[in-house]
Amino acid sequence: MDVTDSKGETAFHYAVQGDSSQVLQLLGKNASSGLNQANHQGLTPLHLACQLGKEEMVRVLLLCNARCNMAAPCGYPIHMAMKFSQKGCAEMIVGMDSNQIHSKDPRYGASPLHWAKNAEMARMLLKRGSDVDCTSASGNTALHVAVMRSRFDCAMALLTYGANAGARGEHGNTPLHLAMSKDSVELVKALIVFGAEVDAPNDFGETPAFIASKISKQLEDLVHVSRARKPPFLLSSTRDEKRTHDHLLCLDGGGVKGLVIIQLLIAIEKASGVATKDLFDWVAGTSTGGILALAILHSKSMAYMRGLYFRMKDEVFRGSRPYESGPLEEFLKREFGEHTKMTDVKKPKVMLTGTLSDRQPPELHLFRNYEAPEAFREPHISPNVNLKPPAQPSEQLVWRAARSSGAAPTYFRPNGRFLDGGLLANNPTLDAMTEIHEYNQDLIHKGQGNKVKKLSVVVSLGTGRSPQVPVSCVDVFRPSNPWELAKTVFGAKELGKMVVDCCTDPDGRAVDRARAWCEMVGIQYFRLNPLLGTDIMLDEVNDAALVNALWETEVYIYQHQEQFQKLVQLLLSP
Amino acid sequence: MDVTDSKGETAFHYAVQGDSSQVLQLLGKNASSGLNQANHQGLTPLHLACQLGKEEMVRVLLLCNARCNMAAPCGYPIHMAMKFSQKGCAEMIVGMDSNQIHSKDPRYGASPLHWAKNAEMARMLLKRGSDVDCTSASGNTALHVAVMRSRFDCAMALLTYGANAGARGEHGNTPLHLAMSKDSVELVKALIVFGAEVDAPNDFGETPAFIASKISKQLEDLVHVSRARKPPFLLSSTRDEKRTHDHLLCLDGGGVKGLVIIQLLIAIEKASGVATKDLFDWVAGTSTGGILALAILHSKSMAYMRGLYFRMKDEVFRGSRPYESGPLEEFLKREFGEHTKMTDVKKPKVMLTGTLSDRQPPELHLFRNYEAPEAFREPHISPNVNLKPPAQPSEQLVWRAARSSGAAPTYFRPNGRFLDGGLLANNPTLDAMTEIHEYNQDLIHKGQGNKVKKLSVVVSLGTGRSPQVPVSCVDVFRPSNPWELAKTVFGAKELGKMVVDCCTDPDGRAVDRARAWCEMVGIQYFRLNPLLGTDIMLDEVNDAALVNALWETEVYIYQHQEQFQKLVQLLLSP
Repeated sequence: MDVTDSKGETAFHYAVQGDSSQVLQLLGKNASSGLNQANHQGLTPLHLACQLGKEEMVRVLLLCNARCNMAAPCGYPIHMAMKFSQKGCAEMIVGMDSNQIHSKDPRYGASPLHWAKNAEMARMLLKRGSDVDCTSASGNTALHVAVMRSRFDCAMALLTYGANAGARGEHGNTPLHLAMSKDSVELVKALIVFGAEVDAPNDFGETPAFIASKISKQLEDLVHVSRARKPPFLLSSTRDEKRTHDHLLCLDGGGVKGLVIIQLLIAIEKASGVATKDLFDWVAGTSTGGILALAILHSKSMAYMRGLYFRMKDEVFRGSRPYESGPLEEFLKREFGEHTKMTDVKKPKVMLTGTLSDRQPPELHLFRNYEAPEAFREPHISPNVNLKPPAQPSEQLVWRAARSSGAAPTYFRPNGRFLDGGLLANNPTLDAMTEIHEYNQDLIHKGQGNKVKKLSVVVSLGTGRSPQVPVSCVDVFRPSNPWELAKTVFGAKELGKMVVDCCTDPDGRAVDRARAWCEMVGIQYFRLNPLLGTDIMLDEVNDAALVNALWETEVYIYQHQEQFQKLVQLLLSP
Repeated sequence: MDVTDSKGETAFHYAVQGDSSQVLQLLGKNASSGLNQANHQGLTPLHLACQLGKEEMVRVLLLCNARCNMAAPCGYPIHMAMKFSQKGCAEMIVGMDSNQIHSKDPRYGASPLHWAKNAEMARMLLKRGSDVDCTSASGNTALHVAVMRSRFDCAMALLTYGANAGARGEHGNTPLHLAMSKDSVELVKALIVFGAEVDAPNDFGETPAFIASKISKQLEDLVHVSRARKPPFLLSSTRDEKRTHDHLLCLDGGGVKGLVIIQLLIAIEKASGVATKDLFDWVAGTSTGGILALAILHSKSMAYMRGLYFRMKDEVFRGSRPYESGPLEEFLKREFGEHTKMTDVKKPKVMLTGTLSDRQPPELHLFRNYEAPEAFREPHISPNVNLKPPAQPSEQLVWRAARSSGAAPTYFRPNGRFLDGGLLANNPTLDAMTEIHEYNQDLIHKGQGNKVKKLSVVVSLGTGRSPQVPVSCVDVFRPSNPWELAKTVFGAKELGKMVVDCCTDPDGRAVDRARAWCEMVGIQYFRLNPLLGTDIMLDEVNDAALVNALWETEVYIYQHQEQFQKLVQLLLSP
C-alpha cells in the first residue's frame, strides 16, 4: 500500500482519481503512510481530491484521518480547494479542522481567503470566521489580491464583510492604487464608495490620485468627486446635551436602496465628526429607513450597516416575490436581539411608521421608543372597539417593529396586521413633524412646558430617485372587443402602478409640503436625495448596480457641497 | 261622423280605443266636430287616448288638429296624461302646445305638475319649463301634493328643481306640516335638509315642531337637531375688503358626496349671513370639491348646487363604470360656460388639484385662476423636456379644469393626461397651504412683500366618512394550489383597494398633518366631516340614501354647534 509509481503516487492517489469511494474506504481501513504520502509534485491524496473537487473522496480521506496540514509547494489542501474553487471540499476541510481557515501557504504566506477566486468562495470563508484583513507575506490583503486580479465580485464580498478599503499592502499600495493602475473604473468606484482615500501615498509617495492623473481623464474625474467628502473642517465635538433646539432626521423607505441613506449619513458624520446618534434628537424612518433608524439608535456604525445591507440583500431577496420573510427576520433578530424592546435604548427618540391594515381605512401606527403623546383632543376618527390596540413601546420587540415597518406588499408578506409604513408615509417627514408637535402639546398639557424644545433643523434623506419619464396615458374603459379587452387589462395594471406611485412617491409633493411647513415655522429644512441614472428596484441584488447608485450619491454630495456644509454647521451649532 | 252612441262617444272615440291609427287618420281627413266631441264623461278622443297611453293615437289626433284645451271635469288632456302617468302622450301635447304645461284643471286649479305621480313625470315637465312653485286653487304647490300623497321620489324631483320647501299652502301649511302629520320620517328629513323650517306657523298658529311633538319622539328629535341651523346671531355683513388676514377653504373629493360639503357650506352661510365667496380669500378643491370651488367662484348659490347635484347624478352615473363623460361635460359647460377661462373671475383665488399622469412619477398640477407663483429655487425634480407644460390659467377653460380634477379612475376615463386630483390630494389642505406659502414667497421675492397676508383660518370640509371597520388581513403570497391561487387573486384585489384607501383617505393623517402644521404656525384650523352611518359611494344615485347622508350632516352640525359658532365668529372678525 505504500508502494509508489514513477510519479510518486500511491494506491491512495489512484483511488482518489478513480470512480469508487468504496475502494478508498477499503484502503483506508488500515493505517498506512501512503494516506498522507506526497507525489512528486508534492500533492497528497487529499490535495488531489481537493483539486479534482471530489467531495466524497475528501470526506472518506478525512474520515481515515488524512492530515490537512501537509504542505505542497502550492500550500495545504485547503489552498488547493480554494485555488480550484472547490467549495464543498473546502467546507469539509474547515469543518474537520477549523484552524485550516487561518493556515498560510508556504510560498506566499497567503491565507485561504487570498486564494478565493470568486465571491461565493470568499463568503464561505468569511462566514466561518476568516480574518478579512489578514495579510500575506508581502503585506497584501485578500482585497489587494482581488483588485489585482480584477475580481470585482470577490472584492465586493470582501468589502461588504468589512475589508479595509485603505489597507496598505506591498510597497504601501492601497487597493485603490492597484485599481487605478489597472484603470478599473468599476473597482475604483467601489473602493471609493467604501471609504478608500485618493490622497493616501504609497512607499514611493505616489497617491491613487497621482496614478489616476497619469491614466485617464475619467479616473481624474472620479478623484475630483471623491474629494468632496474631505471635510473642510473636522471637529471632534460630541453631542451637546444642552442644545436648546431639536434636530429631526427623516429616512425614506426604499428597500436595498437604503444604501443611499447610509452613504449620505456617512458623509454627514465625516463632515461633522459626530455620530448620527448624537447629531439628532428625533429620528423617523419608514421601512428600510426604519431599520436604519433603529441601527442609529443601537449605535451601529453606518459603515457596518453598508456591509450588512450588501450581505443581507443576497439572502433576503432570494427566489421570487413575495420573498420568504425568514431570512430578513433572522437578520433583524441577530442585529437587534431577539428580546430587545423598543424602550431599551431611549436616545435619540425614534419612530418607525407602519400601516395598520386590519381596518378600513388603514391607519398609520408609529413604533416609538418613548411613550406615545396622549391625545387630549377628541379623536377625529372614533376607534372601532373591535380593533385590538397595538403593543405599548415598552412591550414592543425591536426586530418586530423593524419587520412591520418594512413589509412592502408583494415583496414580503405582511407582518400580522402591519403593512409597510411606505403606504402612508414613504417619506415620514410630515408625520414626524406632526408627532413632535403632538408630543410637545402633550408636554404643555401635562404642565411640563419647560421641557418643550423647538425644532430647528429637519433633515430628510431619500433612497435615490429615478429620472422622471413620460408614460402613455393611463386609461381604463369598457372593452368592446378582445383587442380592447387586452388594452383594458394593460390599462388597469398601469393604473395600479400609477396609484402605487402616487401613494408612495417620497419626493414631489411630500417634499414641497414639508419645505413649506418648515419655512412657515422658521425651521431649516434639508432634503437630500440623489438622482439615480437608472431605476433601481427595492430588491436589486446586482452589486455593480448598487455600487453605481452609491457612486451617484457621491457625485450628488460633490454637487451639493455647500448645502452639506451649511447643514453640518447648523447641526453643530449650540 | 258626428253621430254619438249612448255614452256620447263618436267614431273618433271608437277609433282611439281600436287598434289601428290608420282608421283614425282616415276619419281625421275631413274636418268634423266629432274630433273634439266630449263623451258623457266629458272626455274628448284626445282625453281618451291620453288615458289609455296611446301615443300614436295622440299623435294622429294632434296632427288632425284636435284641441288640447278641451276641459273635462278632471282637466285638459294633459292632466289626463299626467294622471295616468302617460309620459309619451304628455310630451306630445306639450310639444304641440307648450302653453299646456301651465294649464290648470277646472276642478282644483292644478297645473299638470300637481298631477305628476312620480319623479319621471315631474322631471319631464320641469325640464320643459314648468313652474315648480305654481299653486293650485287651494294654494298648494306640487310639493304639497307630493308630500300629501307620500310620493318621496316625486317630492325629491321637485326639491332638486328648486321647489320652495317652506311654501305656505292651504291653511298656511308648509309641506313640512303635512309630512309631520303623516309621520313620514323620510320626507321630514328631506324637507328639513332642503331648508324647511320647523318653527313656521300655519294659519292656526301650529308649527311643524308642534305637530311633531304630538306625533312621535322620533319626529321631536328631528326637530331638535334641525334647530341647530338656526343661527344664534344673523349678520348681514359682507366681505371685509380690508381684512388683514387670509381665510382658506379646502374641499375634499368624493363624487356625489360633494352634497355633504354643500350642506356644510349652507350652514356656515346661514350662520354668518355672508356668501362663501366673501368669507374666503382662497378656495382649494379636489374633484367634486373642485367643481364646488368653481361654483363658489362663479357665485352659484349652494342651494342651487344641491339641486344640481341631485339632478346631475342621475344623468352622469348612468350605465356602468367607467361612465360616459359626455353628460358630465355637458353639465360643466352649461354651468360654467363653454368658453369661460379660469382667470375670468379673479376673487377669491381658486385652485383645483389634478394629477398629471403622463409622467412617472405622476405630478400634482394646480388649476388656478391666478398666475402660478414662480419657482425661484432650483426645482427638486428636473422637468423632463419631452413633457408639454400644462396650459396657463388665462388659457385654461373652466369646464375642462373641473373635468380634469374630477376624473376618478375607473369611474370616468381620464381627461387627456389628467387623472383625478384625489390620487395626490384627495384632501387638498396641505397642498393649498404649500401653494399659499409659495405664492407669498414669490411676492416677497418680487419686492411685493407688502401684499403678503398671513393665513389666519383654514376650513377643511369633507364629503362624509364611513365608520372604520375591521378587515381581514391583506396578504399576497405565492399560491401552491388552486385554492391558494384564488386567495391570492382575492388578496391582490383587497390589496389594491387598501392601496387606493391609503392614497385617497382625506381624514386620518391628512387631517393630523394639517392640524399640526396650522397649530405650529398659529393658524385656526377647522376640520368638518360628518361620520355617515353607511358607506356611500362616489356614484350613489339613491335619493333616500343621499338625503340620509345630508340628514346625518345636519346631526353633525347640531353636535358641533360650538365649533360652528367659533368658526363663524373668526370668519367674521376683521
